[in-house]
Amino acid sequence: MGIVLGDNQYGKAEVRVVRLDRDGERHAVTDLNVSTTLSGDLADTHLTGANDKVLATDTQKNTVFAFARDGIGEIEDFGLRLARHFVATQPSIHRARVAIERFPWARLDVGGVPAAHSFARSAEGTRLAVVHHDGERSWVTGGIRDLTVLNSTDSEFWGFPRDRYTTLAETKDRILATAVAASWRFGRTEDVDWAGAYTTARAALLTAFADTYSYSLQQTLYAMGARVLEHVPEIVEVRLSLPNKHHFLSDLSAFGLDNPDEVYYAADRPYGLIEGTVLRDDAPEPGLAWS
Amino acid sequence: MGIVLGDNQYGKAEVRVVRLDRDGERHAVTDLNVSTTLSGDLADTHLTGANDKVLATDTQKNTVFAFARDGIGEIEDFGLRLARHFVATQPSIHRARVAIERFPWARLDVGGVPAAHSFARSAEGTRLAVVHHDGERSWVTGGIRDLTVLNSTDSEFWGFPRDRYTTLAETKDRILATAVAASWRFGRTEDVDWAGAYTTARAALLTAFADTYSYSLQQTLYAMGARVLEHVPEIVEVRLSLPNKHHFLSDLSAFGLDNPDEVYYAADRPYGLIEGTVLRDDAPEPGLAWS
Amino acid sequence: MGIVLGDNQYGKAEVRVVRLDRDGERHAVTDLNVSTTLSGDLADTHLTGANDKVLATDTQKNTVFAFARDGIGEIEDFGLRLARHFVATQPSIHRARVAIERFPWARLDVGGVPAAHSFARSAEGTRLAVVHHDGERSWVTGGIRDLTVLNSTDSEFWGFPRDRYTTLAETKDRILATAVAASWRFGRTEDVDWAGAYTTARAALLTAFADTYSYSLQQTLYAMGARVLEHVPEIVEVRLSLPNKHHFLSDLSAFGLDNPDEVYYAADRPYGLIEGTVLRDDAPEPGLAWS
Amino acid sequence: MGIVLGDNQYGKAEVRVVRLDRDGERHAVTDLNVSTTLSGDLADTHLTGANDKVLATDTQKNTVFAFARDGIGEIEDFGLRLARHFVATQPSIHRARVAIERFPWARLDVGGVPAAHSFARSAEGTRLAVVHHDGERSWVTGGIRDLTVLNSTDSEFWGFPRDRYTTLAETKDRILATAVAASWRFGRTEDVDWAGAYTTARAALLTAFADTYSYSLQQTLYAMGARVLEHVPEIVEVRLSLPNKHHFLSDLSAFGLDNPDEVYYAADRPYGLIEGTVLRDDAPEPGLAWS
Repeated sequence: MGIVLGDNQYGKAEVRVVRLDRDGERHAVTDLNVSTTLSGDLADTHLTGANDKVLATDTQKNTVFAFARDGIGEIEDFGLRLARHFVATQPSIHRARVAIERFPWARLDVGGVPAAHSFARSAEGTRLAVVHHDGERSWVTGGIRDLTVLNSTDSEFWGFPRDRYTTLAETKDRILATAVAASWRFGRTEDVDWAGAYTTARAALLTAFADTYSYSLQQTLYAMGARVLEHVPEIVEVRLSLPNKHHFLSDLSAFGLDNPDEVYYAADRPYGLIEGTVLRDDAPEPGLAWS
Repeated sequence: MGIVLGDNQYGKAEVRVVRLDRDGERHAVTDLNVSTTLSGDLADTHLTGANDKVLATDTQKNTVFAFARDGIGEIEDFGLRLARHFVATQPSIHRARVAIERFPWARLDVGGVPAAHSFARSAEGTRLAVVHHDGERSWVTGGIRDLTVLNSTDSEFWGFPRDRYTTLAETKDRILATAVAASWRFGRTEDVDWAGAYTTARAALLTAFADTYSYSLQQTLYAMGARVLEHVPEIVEVRLSLPNKHHFLSDLSAFGLDNPDEVYYAADRPYGLIEGTVLRDDAPEPGLAWS
Repeated sequence: MGIVLGDNQYGKAEVRVVRLDRDGERHAVTDLNVSTTLSGDLADTHLTGANDKVLATDTQKNTVFAFARDGIGEIEDFGLRLARHFVATQPSIHRARVAIERFPWARLDVGGVPAAHSFARSAEGTRLAVVHHDGERSWVTGGIRDLTVLNSTDSEFWGFPRDRYTTLAETKDRILATAVAASWRFGRTEDVDWAGAYTTARAALLTAFADTYSYSLQQTLYAMGARVLEHVPEIVEVRLSLPNKHHFLSDLSAFGLDNPDEVYYAADRPYGLIEGTVLRDDAPEPGLAWS
Repeated sequence: MGIVLGDNQYGKAEVRVVRLDRDGERHAVTDLNVSTTLSGDLADTHLTGANDKVLATDTQKNTVFAFARDGIGEIEDFGLRLARHFVATQPSIHRARVAIERFPWARLDVGGVPAAHSFARSAEGTRLAVVHHDGERSWVTGGIRDLTVLNSTDSEFWGFPRDRYTTLAETKDRILATAVAASWRFGRTEDVDWAGAYTTARAALLTAFADTYSYSLQQTLYAMGARVLEHVPEIVEVRLSLPNKHHFLSDLSAFGLDNPDEVYYAADRPYGLIEGTVLRDDAPEPGLAWS
């Protein structure tokens, strides 16, 4: 019996790079959180502490800032450039993963006119991209998080099994609220309109959430994933993680009051957590996409 | 020498009440975090544990939900109703403080039409109100937080004193970013258009941030406070707390690259913190307003 | 009617300085979060943007690191040195406030021996100091936070008034849990054994929490504050803020089970919040101590 | 081309159950955060909203509280009981995952005596268990998080490759600090001394961290994993995720000061992140253990 090194990786997490693009007076802001992760021929540093194959995480950070000098563009492309660079230039690095969060900013409105160089953080959701590259192939997923939504009606929940431990009442009208966390896998990495895919996928998620008359959050989840696939042909698979942000009807009867579905208590914990995948039946194999 | 009880207060913090208002198909959401704090003749419970003068914090919570049954309206009014109730009905309670946060929701847009009962959390800022009542008088402050803004130019910082420990370079062009936290004191509590005051004050803060050519964050702070006073006559004093969310220009020279004010590092800690008050020279005494 | 500048201050928040002291092989770690706040003749920067009286917050940060070079010692002393430096060297600065958090580390135990230079973060609580200096006088408060405690019995709560909105049952046995946040004011700033005062005050808080048979959290609060005053003569006033971390007995009757005070649900929000002051009847005026 | 449902699961997250065990006056506290996740024949609820196969997450929560009535014991056992119950009693549920966090409490010391029923949250780390059960087999992993450690010397980092973007200086003496997050896979689920395994694994991690003279955090990681395997025969694989909590030596030269490895700046972001697996060369297949 011996002890051996298994899978391993390392990198620099949460590099907060902000880039300004200037078109005369009119500026644009790109605000990112970039995490790079490398793996490959790294047994030496684990077993002996020899670091000649370890591209320092500080160097990875520097590379992010240096690459931003030439422009960032869409985060999926920026991730591809970075991932391919690390694998191409470091013989010991056989695989790179670059995860990027893009925080949303909206132009401030000043006197009815969009400001040229003033911005406010918006609630449009944080745009996500994760890129893998193994020296030959690349895989890209996009996504979104920090998008909190609520339907104040058109949600029921009933017909579930009742065992010894079931006390939940059935309901024909409840609040349905969640914080959307979605990732989508692209079937290819060339000739994709990354920005258009993001905008369309985001709109599909919101529209499906709003217009699905729901008998379970699972049903809403499936509708949301399917809607993305219907509208974005380059996307082949969608993964959703939806916390059920419970709003419990407040029982006011002790105070001699009724409560006709008006007053709710918004709970923190525990919460339901619904997770699911919706995909095309001819989706290519995921490869490293979700690693 | 003896040991005595000094100032004290107690209450229920962070009651998360959500109310739906229904106008046929069209719903509205009011999403609050309410904290009640009472003080008065409370020596007994501290000194002997006798609780006959202690309105239970659980009862305070129940009262918040019960009062929401009749409608919430503007948070300043809801706070006044609650604060006056506690003092009026509990002989031992001589003063109440009700602090309310209102989380912003925006109607979802579905196919170009605002949804009747679907919403998304927005980034318009969390609206705040703090109400004090002492049995005779009431005081109200409003406010906002969670409003993050950035100017990508029109900000300089130079001319500051240089002592032994000063290394900061002067700059004629920098990013200026902050998360606005503002409170404003109303000069009266009757006949105030609370919603209008909030909307106007918020717009004044944003506009002043955007259109002030800034030589220091202090200057911007003063401009923001003054702008609120200029546009909302009922407000007599504004307090602002503005973290300077530093964006440092990345030094790319080691990589043979220049950086013409394009690539920045967004720092977490430490950060500058600028706090100041702007008020009318005939503002009435604050009384308990800021307690 | 005019608009004027009111109270204002500025500084650098959350300077994370860590110092090692080496006594041969045996090291000690001092891990601080320092926030400096200055006020004085600062109207110019607010009104015109002229910064010749504004010691840059970057300089304040540098000063913290430079002063750490000569040793930090007790945080109350380090705060006094910094506060006095800023007021003494900057004519425009009339008052300084230095707030310090010290994070606790304990020596790791390796094979039964305390390690010479290996440490783990401990849960002893974060030690606090806030120093004010106005050019002539200084004021010091100490304190602690992040100290979470629980009594599993010896806590009752009953006899409280019952109004229309009261539903809480009386109890003769409940869990009492809180996260202690305490500040204490020293009556003088010279010849104080800061470390001893902290250690004794912390032990007094914990002992009083544990050995007080409690009829209300207010009663426990008072006992904790009084115990500190009884054991630390240099402390003249104690302020406590104690969230009531509710543990609700789980109702298992629907499952045919009793619950003899064994199974609880630990709630997040809302929570009771009990705040109070205990002081000596001959305590000197607080001056700027609590500002 | 069609759209289909892929992998999915659902459950109740973060059930905060606290149990008291009473041995006369002497109490013990078990403080848990339990998350249950079920999967199986769940296509209906996704595709049509029919919920007859969906054990409500509210019922899952109730089950956790009800099962705590008979005692919790070791969290690995509690997880096994819950996971097997859900699969055994719900025909539609083919697999259950139960993840448990146990928060550490230490007995308060009152006058040199360990208190019978007073406790303080400790920093020993949060104990973790994840149990999977598929109706036939069970898999158990244990683990720990929230364990922050620091070596003030005996850490070097040099010999790493230098490319165009490398600026990091080599060092023969640095602070090495991390927040340990570890999971370990047990080779069997019967006849394991769970508590003993946890205690021994935790001690092995800390001892290896302290006594490894380190040339890279990867080397320390491997030493920590191997040490666990050497001391706990039931554990067959260890996964570690170690953020490199950077402490940068402060450059005081601008102030005319040297800095003989004494004054550091503790950075928040970005941070290195080192992840790796150490396992026995005859470890059985992981099956569902890490799912």
